[in-house]
Amino acid sequence: MQDIKERVLKFNEERDWHKFHSPENLAKSISIEAGELLECFQWNNNYNKEEVIEELADVVNYCILMSNALGVELEDIVLEKLKKTEKKYPIEKAKGVSTKYNKFDK
Amino acid sequence: MQDIKERVLKFNEERDWHKFHSPENLAKSISIEAGELLECFQWNNNYNKEEVIEELADVVNYCILMSNALGVELEDIVLEKLKKTEKKYPIEKAKGVSTKYNKFDK
Amino acid sequence: MQDIKERVLKFNEERDWHKFHSPENLAKSISIEAGELLECFQWNNNYNKEEVIEELADVVNYCILMSNALGVELEDIVLEKLKKTEKKYPIEKAKGVSTKYNKFDK
Amino acid sequence: MQDIKERVLKFNEERDWHKFHSPENLAKSISIEAGELLECFQWNNNYNKEEVIEELADVVNYCILMSNALGVELEDIVLEKLKKTEKKYPIEKAKGVSTKYNKFDK
Repeated sequence: MQDIKERVLKFNEERDWHKFHSPENLAKSISIEAGELLECFQWNNNYNKEEVIEELADVVNYCILMSNALGVELEDIVLEKLKKTEKKYPIEKAKGVSTKYNKFDK
Repeated sequence: MQDIKERVLKFNEERDWHKFHSPENLAKSISIEAGELLECFQWNNNYNKEEVIEELADVVNYCILMSNALGVELEDIVLEKLKKTEKKYPIEKAKGVSTKYNKFDK
Repeated sequence: MQDIKERVLKFNEERDWHKFHSPENLAKSISIEAGELLECFQWNNNYNKEEVIEELADVVNYCILMSNALGVELEDIVLEKLKKTEKKYPIEKAKGVSTKYNKFDK
Repeated sequence: MQDIKERVLKFNEERDWHKFHSPENLAKSISIEAGELLECFQWNNNYNKEEVIEELADVVNYCILMSNALGVELEDIVLEKLKKTEKKYPIEKAKGVSTKYNKFDK
């Protein structure tokens, strides 16, 4: 991911766009692009794979910029969150079900 | 990213969750998590960095699962999209402005 | 709202579009249109009022269709929810602050 | 809708919350609530109707506040937009299909 992050940052530096990239603006941008990704599936499941891939790339592009704005690495924060989620969703309770952790039997 | 992708996939295999991870369900999930990320900035800009990082990790987690469902690598698709975007936003037109490409002067 | 609901329903009946309007598809549609509304504010606050109004109308259009799919009236459900919110946000605790109810002092 | 709009405005005036309700913050809020609505359908179609209704009410609540911030009436703007959409989607082309207008045969 490091390589691609550098490419994305360089692209934006060349265009002097970092001034637009406050965490708040990037959070909006991720939501906007997520909506465009969802649009590929709006009425049915016959999605156009090329369109889906492009919209997914747009979401990830802004996630990379957000990680830069926050001074963190995406790999690190996904790993950290995974460790927390492992505790909230122990295999024996979570296996095969989509139940939210706060609705597990105690 | 390869390492973290394997960790994420293993986590979901252990819980037999891949059956939920159709591209459509993942697109919904990315939008839902993007909304939670945006909530950190709902009324003002005094965000809690730890919360923002966790919500961003959730978005990226589902992007990783989506890349797996589509059989692509996130690094590759972001790079491909960047090449397209470079053509749509040449430096001399895009520099310092947030104008959308379809509103550039011809 | 009754008048406009009938107009919206008639428009969709004429086009035989109700078959697409499952609650799930409408939930996706509301998110998609909400993303387009948000795009009017992506990089700054200099929004185009006409564009904002059109995107807001799209969101509400799908909310009307959702109310129809669920067999409820928007006025009724907003009123019901308001009563609940009044209890969660008593004036003396909520006045002038954007604090979420679960973070109020006990 | 007029009655319920007045109720919603009064609720927010009593709490001195209008100061938070810039069009931009309301656009974020509509997206956030749309995400919560979508969450009711995240993994399958077995939705809890009561939850769906509450989340839909939250979306409409913020749409009402947005209409107030913009100085327009929701009924008026939905009707205006419907007239435009009727032109973009003539019955003979749109009947029974979910095709986007820009993909119609010329």
